[in-house]
Amino acid sequence: MNRAICLLSGGLDSATTLAIAKSEGWAVHALTFDYGQRATAEVQAALKVAAHIGVASHKVFQIDLRQIGGSALTEEWEVPKQEPVPGTIPSTYVPARNTILLSCALGYAEVIRAAAIYIGVNSLDYSGYPDCRPEFITAFERLAGLATRMGSEGVQIRIHAPLISLSKADIIRRGAQLGVDYGWTFSCYDPSPTGLACGLCESCRIRLNGFKEAGLVDPIPYQSYGK
Amino acid sequence: MNRAICLLSGGLDSATTLAIAKSEGWAVHALTFDYGQRATAEVQAALKVAAHIGVASHKVFQIDLRQIGGSALTEEWEVPKQEPVPGTIPSTYVPARNTILLSCALGYAEVIRAAAIYIGVNSLDYSGYPDCRPEFITAFERLAGLATRMGSEGVQIRIHAPLISLSKADIIRRGAQLGVDYGWTFSCYDPSPTGLACGLCESCRIRLNGFKEAGLVDPIPYQSYGK
Repeated sequence: MNRAICLLSGGLDSATTLAIAKSEGWAVHALTFDYGQRATAEVQAALKVAAHIGVASHKVFQIDLRQIGGSALTEEWEVPKQEPVPGTIPSTYVPARNTILLSCALGYAEVIRAAAIYIGVNSLDYSGYPDCRPEFITAFERLAGLATRMGSEGVQIRIHAPLISLSKADIIRRGAQLGVDYGWTFSCYDPSPTGLACGLCESCRIRLNGFKEAGLVDPIPYQSYGK
Repeated sequence: MNRAICLLSGGLDSATTLAIAKSEGWAVHALTFDYGQRATAEVQAALKVAAHIGVASHKVFQIDLRQIGGSALTEEWEVPKQEPVPGTIPSTYVPARNTILLSCALGYAEVIRAAAIYIGVNSLDYSGYPDCRPEFITAFERLAGLATRMGSEGVQIRIHAPLISLSKADIIRRGAQLGVDYGWTFSCYDPSPTGLACGLCESCRIRLNGFKEAGLVDPIPYQSYGK
């Protein structure tokens, strides 16, 4: 069993996670969610990233989380453009998103007999989302063992979150070492109609700061830059 | 916060669970999943059950689990018609289904500020599915606290599984006491083209045995009866 699933949003973190999973010797099956997110460019970026890094397969799973709503990413709400307030969960939090996506990945893992699921969450330079913390990952892994036929057969599906304690700068350095071209990736929550990253949303801010700290240049174009 | 979500498949168990949730004083928001299941009559039954029992709202959530497959309920496989073998998980197990459905319910609970999710799993007269056991429910509840904004705010969403240790006969008796008319419900995994329950699949067998043990008559018509 050398198969792993990698959740691939098309952003910087998931692209790096995919490169790490490959470097660790797994046959990686990429899984992208078209969940009705505001930035449709994400799915396009995921297709490019998977093609460039190379995967055993790539599935785009449709699940319209606009049926639930409750987030600036799935509702017609304004995406915040100011500096995020530390210790708060911003309106871009999508209710239970990582639980939902990992659950679908878990079902898929059972079907293709994958022993691992990689997810690019990190809890250092992040937006304070509860479902990006190590304790969430540990609890999900425990659930996975109880929830599945594989678990009943004694096979524990492992949840790998290799970025969880890395800074954004470290993630970028690691990806660059592994040959990830971040020009394929897309992180913005609120792109312009022509598909340019805004440069002001929390995701753009975290990304731009990461490149700055890593001493590298972000290869993607921006509409404007936050201060 | 007197809102609860109740997962409502349209089967006997979920109808009883809905009646129990109502009897416990909750404003119940029913949540039905159209997940590409073979028995499309399930969703129709859920609509009838919700209308008859009475709910605060009823949402039908679309998520096509045929994208994952791996089950006789979501693939073009034959539904087993023989007596189930104790201690094995049959081919009607849908990989990670209850994890996926509870995750979506969790996101919805955050949006409507529901403090509880009711699910009609039971681990006595059941098909041996791993995601119907008490330890699965406990692990999911723990995850729910870590995964969500509500959890971060100190609000623990509770997962109620009131049928978990009841026999099928006990479930039927309890529902009958609460006024559930099981003629509204639909349990068959493999109905005829005209929508009749087959009477032979494991779900029909468990249901028919339950009525027999409860000393009650199942009001729905069957195509044939298993021995």
